[in-house]
Amino acid sequence: MRFATLPDGSPDGRLHVVSRDTARCSPARGVTTLQALLEDWNRHAPDLHAQYQALNAGGGTPFDASKALAPLPRAWQWLDGSAYESHGALMQKVFGLEPHDSARPLMYQGMSDRFLPPTADVPLPFEEDGIDFEGEFGVICDAVPMGTSADAARGHIRLVVQIDDWSLRTLAPIEMKTGFGWVQAKPACSMAPVAVTPDELGPAWRDARVDLPLLVDWNGARFGAAGGYDMAFGFDELIAHAARTRDLVAGTVIGSGTVSNADFREVGSSCIAERRGIEILDHGAPRTGYMQFGDRVRMECRAADGSPLFGAIDQRVVAAAQPPSARK
Amino acid sequence: MRFATLPDGSPDGRLHVVSRDTARCSPARGVTTLQALLEDWNRHAPDLHAQYQALNAGGGTPFDASKALAPLPRAWQWLDGSAYESHGALMQKVFGLEPHDSARPLMYQGMSDRFLPPTADVPLPFEEDGIDFEGEFGVICDAVPMGTSADAARGHIRLVVQIDDWSLRTLAPIEMKTGFGWVQAKPACSMAPVAVTPDELGPAWRDARVDLPLLVDWNGARFGAAGGYDMAFGFDELIAHAARTRDLVAGTVIGSGTVSNADFREVGSSCIAERRGIEILDHGAPRTGYMQFGDRVRMECRAADGSPLFGAIDQRVVAAAQPPSARK
Repeated sequence: MRFATLPDGSPDGRLHVVSRDTARCSPARGVTTLQALLEDWNRHAPDLHAQYQALNAGGGTPFDASKALAPLPRAWQWLDGSAYESHGALMQKVFGLEPHDSARPLMYQGMSDRFLPPTADVPLPFEEDGIDFEGEFGVICDAVPMGTSADAARGHIRLVVQIDDWSLRTLAPIEMKTGFGWVQAKPACSMAPVAVTPDELGPAWRDARVDLPLLVDWNGARFGAAGGYDMAFGFDELIAHAARTRDLVAGTVIGSGTVSNADFREVGSSCIAERRGIEILDHGAPRTGYMQFGDRVRMECRAADGSPLFGAIDQRVVAAAQPPSARK
Repeated sequence: MRFATLPDGSPDGRLHVVSRDTARCSPARGVTTLQALLEDWNRHAPDLHAQYQALNAGGGTPFDASKALAPLPRAWQWLDGSAYESHGALMQKVFGLEPHDSARPLMYQGMSDRFLPPTADVPLPFEEDGIDFEGEFGVICDAVPMGTSADAARGHIRLVVQIDDWSLRTLAPIEMKTGFGWVQAKPACSMAPVAVTPDELGPAWRDARVDLPLLVDWNGARFGAAGGYDMAFGFDELIAHAARTRDLVAGTVIGSGTVSNADFREVGSSCIAERRGIEILDHGAPRTGYMQFGDRVRMECRAADGSPLFGAIDQRVVAAAQPPSARK
């Protein structure tokens, strides 16, 4: 099944079922929001599956991804991993970090009260903060009890999504150094318009990983096409890690971290920081600057046969309006 | 005004106005949940204030704090500071951490999809994780625009609350070392039953700080009575820090970090880790163990005249039930 959320004036929007070719959609029957679906998946899934099959046969209305909100416009919990070792190793070099214990997944808790719509402008306060995109995959779970194993976690993965985890690179190492993780360096993320059940990926859903490349374009030029498979920990293991000491609320979003491959010189990168890291290795200093206001980033992952999957994130970074109180 | 949330079968519970002596309450008029009130404070506040004044004159039903949920049973965002320098300095010594830049507040994003009720059992998986309480004060804001100054942030502080930020000390330094902050080391927090508007504190609300001691009892013995005033950054500055690169959603909870004073040998501590730190300084090794299943912790802050304020957190730590999948 494929789902999108269209605006209806409410914070959670209106859940729609989207056809396999992502060309058409119809309002989900029996459930209004994706959050409500995730809270009672087994009750709603059979009817929605019937609706999806009927929609694939015809009917519905045209699906306009440019109107879509994030499939889950806000979540009770966003836990982002950093599961690509080639990315981690490069970041360690660039930021002078100590190597971490590779037997434990890296994970932080991020802002989840809003996920930006896939084509909305991204307002940020200062270019000097080092504005960067981070192309990722993610999964959305139903309720996961504390202590759930990785094997059992697979059954809790209800949807696969594509995320841009916006990052402010000047602030990131300052916050990392405290050990407290990121607040200022990690503003709201964006989510591609269509969330899909794992079976929609066919053989590309492998070992609880997305075995497809994430195509990243910066201002219209190809920047990266790294494959999603190379996670040191699958989403199942990331979920088990997160659930070790807490029950995970239904609708928890778990991120892969920046998609990255060991042959990053060939396939490119899913964030600017990684390219700068390569430049530091190759030339002793970075040559690529971070984003400027007005810059665009586009991220899309398609199925092996080229058919659409999550739709595209396609956003422009803009200067945030400062509130009247900013100078008080 | 004073507010509590009583169970009604819904995840957000039913908002009640509580009398000044916290003896009586009545269902809030015109608004059902605390989250809804925080989303539209100015519209609801006049009616609720009239209801509060009438309730103080008489009427309502007895308020049973043992039945109360957390005033905000779940929040879209929980950002916890660590603003008491005596606590930070001690933790640095105990965990061998580098000193941080004291001009920047410390803050992490924590689990907010549930705040435990003030008298509910606290289920945790393993005693070996080093179960510890952390007595804190907190504030709850209405919507705060990105870039809001500390001065302007004061007007966004709608409620003051008292929090136990449960911590797992064996896991905490492992997660801190990654720079990603805490996931496993910070399970759900608890909140005292009554949330109060800052004016209820009278002169004890000073410089956006709570100038009252937090009384902490562990298994019936006084453990700490540290004063709340000694924050290096007031809640106004913590809010401005949090809002530098993001809009803060209405209902954001901002924590003070573990309440601590420089004369901790006299006043005691608000967490076990701090007492262990003192023991390490004095004897070369800790003598106090962390909590065991069945242990209780009680935390209460009363007004200068002894009258009740937030009510008490009074909880027992218990072994979490392991799901059938735990051993898969």
